[in-house]
Amino acid sequence: MSEINATMRGIGQTARAASRRLAASEAGARNAALRAIAERLRDDRAALETANEKDLAAGRGNGLDAALLDRLTLTDARIDAMADGLEQIAALPDPVGAVSHLDPMPSGIRVGRMRVPLGVVGIIYESRPNVTADAAALCLKSGNACVLRGGSEALHSNQAIAACIAAGLADAGLPETAVQVVRTTDRAAVGAMITLDEYIDVLVPRGGKGLIERIMREATVPMIKHLDGVCHCYVDADADPAMAERVVVNAKTQRYGTCNTLETLLVDASVAASLLPRFKAAFDAHGVELRGCERSRALVDGLTAAEPADWDAEYLAPILAVAVVDGLDAAIEHIDRHGSGHTDAIVTRDHARAQRFLREVDSSSVMVNASTRFADGFEYGLGAEIGISTDKLHARGPVGLEGLTTQKYIVLGEGHVRE
Amino acid sequence: MSEINATMRGIGQTARAASRRLAASEAGARNAALRAIAERLRDDRAALETANEKDLAAGRGNGLDAALLDRLTLTDARIDAMADGLEQIAALPDPVGAVSHLDPMPSGIRVGRMRVPLGVVGIIYESRPNVTADAAALCLKSGNACVLRGGSEALHSNQAIAACIAAGLADAGLPETAVQVVRTTDRAAVGAMITLDEYIDVLVPRGGKGLIERIMREATVPMIKHLDGVCHCYVDADADPAMAERVVVNAKTQRYGTCNTLETLLVDASVAASLLPRFKAAFDAHGVELRGCERSRALVDGLTAAEPADWDAEYLAPILAVAVVDGLDAAIEHIDRHGSGHTDAIVTRDHARAQRFLREVDSSSVMVNASTRFADGFEYGLGAEIGISTDKLHARGPVGLEGLTTQKYIVLGEGHVRE
Repeated sequence: MSEINATMRGIGQTARAASRRLAASEAGARNAALRAIAERLRDDRAALETANEKDLAAGRGNGLDAALLDRLTLTDARIDAMADGLEQIAALPDPVGAVSHLDPMPSGIRVGRMRVPLGVVGIIYESRPNVTADAAALCLKSGNACVLRGGSEALHSNQAIAACIAAGLADAGLPETAVQVVRTTDRAAVGAMITLDEYIDVLVPRGGKGLIERIMREATVPMIKHLDGVCHCYVDADADPAMAERVVVNAKTQRYGTCNTLETLLVDASVAASLLPRFKAAFDAHGVELRGCERSRALVDGLTAAEPADWDAEYLAPILAVAVVDGLDAAIEHIDRHGSGHTDAIVTRDHARAQRFLREVDSSSVMVNASTRFADGFEYGLGAEIGISTDKLHARGPVGLEGLTTQKYIVLGEGHVRE
Repeated sequence: MSEINATMRGIGQTARAASRRLAASEAGARNAALRAIAERLRDDRAALETANEKDLAAGRGNGLDAALLDRLTLTDARIDAMADGLEQIAALPDPVGAVSHLDPMPSGIRVGRMRVPLGVVGIIYESRPNVTADAAALCLKSGNACVLRGGSEALHSNQAIAACIAAGLADAGLPETAVQVVRTTDRAAVGAMITLDEYIDVLVPRGGKGLIERIMREATVPMIKHLDGVCHCYVDADADPAMAERVVVNAKTQRYGTCNTLETLLVDASVAASLLPRFKAAFDAHGVELRGCERSRALVDGLTAAEPADWDAEYLAPILAVAVVDGLDAAIEHIDRHGSGHTDAIVTRDHARAQRFLREVDSSSVMVNASTRFADGFEYGLGAEIGISTDKLHARGPVGLEGLTTQKYIVLGEGHVRE
C-alpha cells in the first residue's frame, strides 16, 4: 500500500470510530460544539487571516485569476458569516433520533423507524475555505463524522479553520477526529478517499464538472451529486405574457453561474410569434445572447442559429437557447431528451397542463409559474444545504440535513417469536 | 459493441420509453394489469406446466439436486399462489403520486414533495420462477418498468410467465415492454445489464453471495442489496431466562437458511453460568451445534471450540457461535466488529440498556425482546418485499413498494421570481 493510501485508511478508521461516539452523543453536545467552533473562529480571526494570506500569496504567484482569488479570500466579514452560519445550524431542529410510525403488527411486535446518522461523510471541494466550516457543521449537526478534502490552493486557510473546529469539538467534549481535514495536497489522496467504502458511507463532491466526472468514474463509495444543470422553462399557450417574461428573465439573469440558472427556453408555437419579440427585447436589455431554432429565428430577428450542441449546453453565461415547440407533449419530450433532471418549469394558467408537467417531467425540481432560481435548500425551507442531487436514489433535489441521515427499523417485542 | 451488449441496450431503451408511459399512467390501469396477469396465469396453467417440464427435464439431465429441482417446480398450487400474490399487490394502496408538505415559504412560493416511480428497475435472480411474477408485479404497482434476468435453469418457465405478463399488460392497455424478461442465457447479459446506467435506475440482485459479489464489483447502476446476514442476539444480565431461551431458539431454529436467522449468541458474563447450560439443552433438542469462545466453554460442556472465522460466519445451517461478553458495551463492540448490519437483537428487562441498544447498534433492524426472524417486509406491514437492504442510502432493511419510488420537489408560484 502506498503511503498516501495508508494515511487515508488511517483517517477513515479514526473517522469510523469517531462516528460511533457521535451517533451516541446528545444533540446538546453537538450544538455546543457548533457554538464553540463559531466562537473559536471569531477569536482566531487574526490567525485565520494570516494563514489565508499565505494561500493568497501562493495563488498570486501561481497566476490565479481575480475571481478565484476573490473566492479564496477570508475577510473579517466572511469570517463573521462563517461563524454566524454555524450558530444558525446549531439552532436548527435535531435531524436525528426521531422514531416514526411505531405501529403494532398482527404478530404483536411493534415496528417503527428511527432516524439515525449515515456514519462517515466524505466531502471533496474546491477553493472557497468557508465550505470547510459549513460542511463540517452540517455533518456534525446530523451526527456524522466527516473527512474533508479541500482544494490545495486553500490549504493553509482550511488547516487554520480545522484547528478552530478541533478546538471547538474538544470544548464540547466530542472527539476531535469527528472532523478531519486532509492535510496532503497530493492528488492521489482523492483517489484513495473515494474508494474507502469500508469507512466512508457517502461522498458529497462539490466542484466543477471535471472533478465530479473523475469521482463518478473511480468512486466505490456512493455519492450525493449533480453533474449538470440544463434547466428549462416552457412557456405554454396559456401563459400570462408579463408573468412569463418576468419568470424567464429572472431564471436566466438573476445569476448566470449557478446550476439552477435557465439554459433553454421552450415556447409553444401558438404564442411564439407574439411572445418571442417581447422576450428578445427583455433579454437584449440584459445583454443575453439568444440562440434559436429555425422556427424561432423565422419569428424574430437577431437570434444566433442554434447548433445541435446548444440543446444540451449548460452555458453558465449570458447565453440562452430558444426553441419553438408544438405544445406540452413536445416540451416534455424535449426536456426528457436534453434535460439533466435538475430543475424545469412551466409558465401557464391552465390547471391540467400544469398538473401534467408536474407529474410527467422527471426532474429533481419541477415548477409552475416560478423561476428555476428557487431550486435551493434555503428557498425550500431546509435550513441548510449540503448540495443538490440529480440522482434518484436516497436524496433528490436540494439536500439538507435529512439527506445526511438514514432510517433503521426498530422492533419492540415482549418475547415474541415467529411461528 | 458485441451482439449481447446491443441487445441489452435495446432492452434498456425500450424499458426507458415504457417507464415514461407507466409514470403517466393511472393507478387503476396498473392494478387492472396486475389482475389481468393473474387471470392469464390461471388460464394458461397447462402451458406454464409444459414449459416448466422442459426446465425440469433439462435440470435433471444437468444433475440439479432435489432441493433445486423442487424450487424450480411449478405446481397447480404454486401457480395459484403466484396469481393470488398479484391480486394482493393490486389491492395494496397506490405508492405513487402522493404530495407531502406543500408548505408556503417566506418568498411566497409553495414547496412540496411528490412521490414518483424510480423509472426502470433491473432484477437479477436465480431458479424460482415465481420471482418473475412477483418482481414484475411490485415494479408495475410502483409505476416502474423493469428488466428481469432470471436463472438459465428456469428459462422456459420464465418465458411462459413473461407471455402471461405481456398479455395482461396488453389487456389493460399498458405497453408490453413495461416488463421485459431477458431471453438469452448468455452470462454476458448480466455484465451488460449491470452497466446500463443510462437506462436502468436501480438493480435489485437476489441470489447467492457469489452473484451479489460479482454484481457489486462490476455494476455502475446503483443497487438495493444485502450481502450477508450475520445476525446477533445479546442476552443481557437483566433478561428473563425463559424469554431469552424462547427468542434465541426461535431466531436460530425457525428456519436455518434465511438471512435473518441468528448466527451468533452473545451472553452477558454475569448470567452466562446460569443461562448457558439451559440454552445448550434447548439447542441440543434441535440438533444445533454450538461453537463457543473459551469463556463459554469453561461454563458448559459439549461446545465445539470456535475459530476466529466463526465470529464472521453466516452458517445458514444448524450451527450457532456463542460468546460470553462483559456487558452491553462489549456486546455492541462485538456486533460492530463482526456484524453485517442486517438484524441484531437484545433480550433484556432493563429499559436504559434496551434504548442504548436500539440507538447504538448500527444495523438495518434492531430489536428488543423479539426474534430476528421478524426482519421481513410482510412482518413489518409493508405488504410486499422486493428484498432486504443493508446499505444505508435510499432503502434500509426490508424494502417494499416505497423503496421502488423516489420523491421530487414541486414548486408552485404565481409568477414568483428570486430577488
